Amino acid sequence: MKPIKTRLLTPGPTIVPERVLQAMSTHTLYHRSPEFKTIFSETIERLKRFFRTERDTLVLTASGTGAMEAAVANLFAPGDSAVVVVGGKFGKRWKELCEAFGVKPVVIELEWGKAVKVEDIKEAIEKNPNVKGVFIQICETSTGVYNDVRAIGEITSKYDDVILVADGITAFGVYDIPVDDWNIDVAITGSQKALMTPPGLAVISLNEKAKKRLERERSVYYFDLAKEIKNQAKGQTAYTPAVNLIVGLNEALKMIEEEGLENVAERHRILAMCAREGIKALGLELLSEVPANGVTAVKVPEGIDGQKLVSWIREKFGIVIAGGQDHLKGKIFRLSHMGYVDIFDLLTELEAVEFALTRMGYRIEYGISVKAAMDTFIRAVHKRPV
Amino acid sequence: MKPIKTRLLTPGPTIVPERVLQAMSTHTLYHRSPEFKTIFSETIERLKRFFRTERDTLVLTASGTGAMEAAVANLFAPGDSAVVVVGGKFGKRWKELCEAFGVKPVVIELEWGKAVKVEDIKEAIEKNPNVKGVFIQICETSTGVYNDVRAIGEITSKYDDVILVADGITAFGVYDIPVDDWNIDVAITGSQKALMTPPGLAVISLNEKAKKRLERERSVYYFDLAKEIKNQAKGQTAYTPAVNLIVGLNEALKMIEEEGLENVAERHRILAMCAREGIKALGLELLSEVPANGVTAVKVPEGIDGQKLVSWIREKFGIVIAGGQDHLKGKIFRLSHMGYVDIFDLLTELEAVEFALTRMGYRIEYGISVKAAMDTFIRAVHKRPV
Repeated sequence: MKPIKTRLLTPGPTIVPERVLQAMSTHTLYHRSPEFKTIFSETIERLKRFFRTERDTLVLTASGTGAMEAAVANLFAPGDSAVVVVGGKFGKRWKELCEAFGVKPVVIELEWGKAVKVEDIKEAIEKNPNVKGVFIQICETSTGVYNDVRAIGEITSKYDDVILVADGITAFGVYDIPVDDWNIDVAITGSQKALMTPPGLAVISLNEKAKKRLERERSVYYFDLAKEIKNQAKGQTAYTPAVNLIVGLNEALKMIEEEGLENVAERHRILAMCAREGIKALGLELLSEVPANGVTAVKVPEGIDGQKLVSWIREKFGIVIAGGQDHLKGKIFRLSHMGYVDIFDLLTELEAVEFALTRMGYRIEYGISVKAAMDTFIRAVHKRPV
Repeated sequence: MKPIKTRLLTPGPTIVPERVLQAMSTHTLYHRSPEFKTIFSETIERLKRFFRTERDTLVLTASGTGAMEAAVANLFAPGDSAVVVVGGKFGKRWKELCEAFGVKPVVIELEWGKAVKVEDIKEAIEKNPNVKGVFIQICETSTGVYNDVRAIGEITSKYDDVILVADGITAFGVYDIPVDDWNIDVAITGSQKALMTPPGLAVISLNEKAKKRLERERSVYYFDLAKEIKNQAKGQTAYTPAVNLIVGLNEALKMIEEEGLENVAERHRILAMCAREGIKALGLELLSEVPANGVTAVKVPEGIDGQKLVSWIREKFGIVIAGGQDHLKGKIFRLSHMGYVDIFDLLTELEAVEFALTRMGYRIEYGISVKAAMDTFIRAVHKRPV
């Protein structure tokens, strides 16, 4: 039996709701028109509410990596040092970006699956007097690890010349994170994760402490944040933006507001719990020491090829889950529960994994992870009516 | 937790695939343009392949009931008698249509949930010499009963003046039914069921035996089948048709051809088996003596209000399943597995029912119906690789 439908359940891009697709499929607006200015300004205001902040928040026509580059290129000078937490593929990207822009990375290398120890950050700052910032992932997507950025923000906020730059591409909207309260000087996200919009837009939000650095000489053009701040305050962008994606993002943010950001976060928290309990019931192990709420990385049992498992599920069932990256290729698979996902999507992922494991000789009773996840779900929503 | 998405799992309208929605959302074509004529003729040819026939097959801009009326009004004369099988809401509709057009119904009344006995049809024809036809549902949607229309066709084909008019609105595309081989003189279906298109189009296919009756005087206008036959042979319709729906239907038929009609039917057969086994595992009873492959009607256990069950599932989970109609209101619920539905959609329905039953005091172990359905699914697809 061939799959008749595709279910996108990777940790990005994620499923786009019909409402967003429909909003995007209207005629392209002229980006200098009053109609677009209104929508763009509305989108920016929604993004500020999404970050729980009043500070400058910019939309860039780029993938999330574009906003990462913007942070490094605009806010650091060649010769600066920066603490970089490398516990996965995206931590490595911070390191590579630093190197590309002449910033000396003070790397805290973690075994993939481990979260950073907050005291190690403090120590790295203290030991390297030229450190001008800390680069981190709130959630390291490649390993499903959550880093305690709130605690890190408490440390960095004590240093006038150290800014905290947090890649929250798979964290914002999974968690309800108030960037000001948490002292996240630079917050970054992308459209294609919990923001439920196709890829192509990056978001960067920066406070006064970070903005001060824009006053000095910088070698930037497309990602010139000072120029964007000036333009976007007037409902404009420096260059022609991805108009339809912005219309879609505005609709997605409307949906998040309707559900309520705190409810969105609570939904992700509960689904993540359900995923973990389902996985445990299968006798499998999580990769992550501190598992994040947007994606659950699972070690593939001995003797089973994780790449085959993931591709079998995709080919036979049209369900697209992610495998491992780099040296974790074949060793893990990753269940996403991020964005436009509910309990039944998660149960579908578990069912597909059950079919695949059985097929590959790992014996389980069908439905065993489903039962565990359903039990967990009902217990979690018990206080409030389901 | 409020539902964040809606899953349409009623026995019509059914889920529309993205491809069909996208095809429909292109600009409306002028219905007298060559572009539309090409698409319309293509659609008609695909429908003929869908019915495994070369005979006249027409698209009407109407709901399925429009095609039912067209059959009664065009092919019967006031004063004629017709055998009408009434085993549910749609059988009743045949009876009402007969009465509205002066056709005397010879009713075979069935307890809802029973299938017609083929010998009763034969007897009714023999006992009533003025019988000019037999009206039946291949699948009675309100009860999920399958009637053995193939065997009935063997009987009616022996009478020169008796035509078999089969409402296959929830049967065609669920089953692979060759209308000529099965002696179905008039075959009817609608766009919004296994044809995976929004409601608004009815299809009627008639053979020479039925067409002969178009030669006599008929009181028809909008549903004038003779006029439509003439027009549709030229890629036209008598009146302005639902252009966008036809473009969508063409795309849906393309999808069915890509999957292969026999594979589509096999998928429905397997999903129906899985539904039944899942329901059995919950200790519940099917309503239908001969359960159909498109929809499974389930008796609600003693002490539970079926209407509340269905509305709770809709309100709490956004999953829209159907309850009972008429005197079965509150007594049954109906799981649809018709059209753009795969095993995971069916498991989702079972999970929602498990949540609801538990909530309403009917104790089961979570996942028990999922396990049964998954076991059944794998056994069923065992010979061919999943």
